[in-house]
Amino acid sequence: MASLIGREWRLQRRPVGVPVPEDFSLTEVEVPGPGPGQLLVRNRFLSVDPYMRGRMSDAKSYAAPYGLDEPMTGGAIGEVVESEAEGFAPGDLVRHGLGWREYALLESGEASVLRPTEGVPLSAYLGVLGMTGLTAYAGLMRVADFRPGDRVFVSGAAGAVGSTVGQIARLKGAELVVGSAGSPEKVAWLRDDLGFDRAFDYKRGRVDEQLAKAAPEGIDVYFDNVGGDHLEAALGALRLKGRIAVCGMISRYNDTEPAPGPNNLVRLIQTRGRIEGFLVGDHADLAGEFHRDMGPKVASGELKHRETFTDGIESALDAFLGVLEGANTGKMIVRLDHSR
Amino acid sequence: MASLIGREWRLQRRPVGVPVPEDFSLTEVEVPGPGPGQLLVRNRFLSVDPYMRGRMSDAKSYAAPYGLDEPMTGGAIGEVVESEAEGFAPGDLVRHGLGWREYALLESGEASVLRPTEGVPLSAYLGVLGMTGLTAYAGLMRVADFRPGDRVFVSGAAGAVGSTVGQIARLKGAELVVGSAGSPEKVAWLRDDLGFDRAFDYKRGRVDEQLAKAAPEGIDVYFDNVGGDHLEAALGALRLKGRIAVCGMISRYNDTEPAPGPNNLVRLIQTRGRIEGFLVGDHADLAGEFHRDMGPKVASGELKHRETFTDGIESALDAFLGVLEGANTGKMIVRLDHSR
Repeated sequence: MASLIGREWRLQRRPVGVPVPEDFSLTEVEVPGPGPGQLLVRNRFLSVDPYMRGRMSDAKSYAAPYGLDEPMTGGAIGEVVESEAEGFAPGDLVRHGLGWREYALLESGEASVLRPTEGVPLSAYLGVLGMTGLTAYAGLMRVADFRPGDRVFVSGAAGAVGSTVGQIARLKGAELVVGSAGSPEKVAWLRDDLGFDRAFDYKRGRVDEQLAKAAPEGIDVYFDNVGGDHLEAALGALRLKGRIAVCGMISRYNDTEPAPGPNNLVRLIQTRGRIEGFLVGDHADLAGEFHRDMGPKVASGELKHRETFTDGIESALDAFLGVLEGANTGKMIVRLDHSR
Repeated sequence: MASLIGREWRLQRRPVGVPVPEDFSLTEVEVPGPGPGQLLVRNRFLSVDPYMRGRMSDAKSYAAPYGLDEPMTGGAIGEVVESEAEGFAPGDLVRHGLGWREYALLESGEASVLRPTEGVPLSAYLGVLGMTGLTAYAGLMRVADFRPGDRVFVSGAAGAVGSTVGQIARLKGAELVVGSAGSPEKVAWLRDDLGFDRAFDYKRGRVDEQLAKAAPEGIDVYFDNVGGDHLEAALGALRLKGRIAVCGMISRYNDTEPAPGPNNLVRLIQTRGRIEGFLVGDHADLAGEFHRDMGPKVASGELKHRETFTDGIESALDAFLGVLEGANTGKMIVRLDHSR
């Protein structure tokens, strides 16, 4: 097969504060055919996620920074175009980590064949049944040590992870599920469609006051996607032996100066409470249990998910910037033209 | 026996900021003899501790607030004067919780007979072998889940709890023990007498810079007695899977306005770190193990402790205020005149 031309997003300089288009380039490159042990994949769906903001900086962090003038990486689903690797044949669907580009040349160890369950859309394997869903599951069930009867608060609850956390908590027997989100539409979605007991719009008043009203008897578990005033409010509402799982602090990612943390950490002593940070990568061993437990719920519609799509490789940057601003409801996914 | 006259400290109004003498009264009262099931104790040693500041406020907290115009409570050791309770005879030494007074009238269930080990001074049972020592032990071994090879940082390290934490860590095989304290004398004591690997004076420079120098490879465990800039520095130095046990936040206790917390809580995600608050009262089940493990080390001198004494019931308030300011090295104890 003759080599193909594909486009890929590269980081051109490290953003300061909110990333701007000039920090990136969409570059056309020649994609060589696969060598021995390699496969060539045409990407169909790309994941854009808040954690990628961290990888654009070179500050000490958990994931290696993206290289300058190199294509960025991220979750993706594609179709094998050409394979020189055992176990992969043209037409196979695969999951892999070389997103942000139209064509990915992968070593066989970097991809896994995907056999979607009937009735579950392919893109769900980047979201509710992918890393996003596992993040929700591991953070709630293991890190926050969820137990039936817990009162649970989730911030960023209309996001991909947050909306899954709240529903898992409900399915697992939470006494109360409260979510915060950034628009009346999102709040309505949480309450009317996803079965959250209560939800509030954090832009419409103080978070601590709205949380106190939504959970007057306090919370046992807080799943933090946001940080800042949400974390402070959660600490204030924490019940005895409360647990806070810190998944993200999206309110902080574009800060150029460190912002002060919660002023009430002393509540941890009063409540014997716990705050723990986590990364989904440390909980890959839960993937099997997660799929057995939640896969059927997705197929049956008990565990709902929503996707916000943008189309075309050229839309990926806007999609990513939108996630940082909360433009998505549910999982934000870039759908590549040739996938339709 | 005719009834006795004794003095007791009462809270007269709730302090705002730093407590002042006018918030308290030293009141002379008539102490009745014991009724059935009661014993009358002449206190010999009284404990004054930072947590008592919390009980002087009526804010929601873990311990009930002290009542106004009522005697305050706290750890004490005394001698039975008169007993109407089974298992207690005049002359017995007892531990109990009705400090801040010269004579205590106790229900039998409120006191326990103390049989000090030879060579261990009586006052040690309020300190290194009392609640203070158990606080250090439970916080380090259970809450911070200490493991041999850990690099440990303790703030307030010249205090009663902190000095014990550092020594237990050393005895249990820490790779590195670092302490912070508030004077050159205290720093010297930690290094020269207690076997801390490194110690620094937090008044002589930024805590984060001094900690980075003392523990250039970071820390696995931080035992927090102080909060504020110490907690922020510890987060900055936290290694992967680091654990922070929050015992106290003395830097905050006299605040009238909540002060902002650490600006780098996002480190918890990067390190998959954990912050957990605790109270010694939740770990009473460890007392037996603690005594078996550490009692012999105290008797042999391997686990050292220092006490700062003040004399007479009238000195108790100053002793307490001194603890809040760091006037003590090791455990602050009020020795009552009639004990000499």
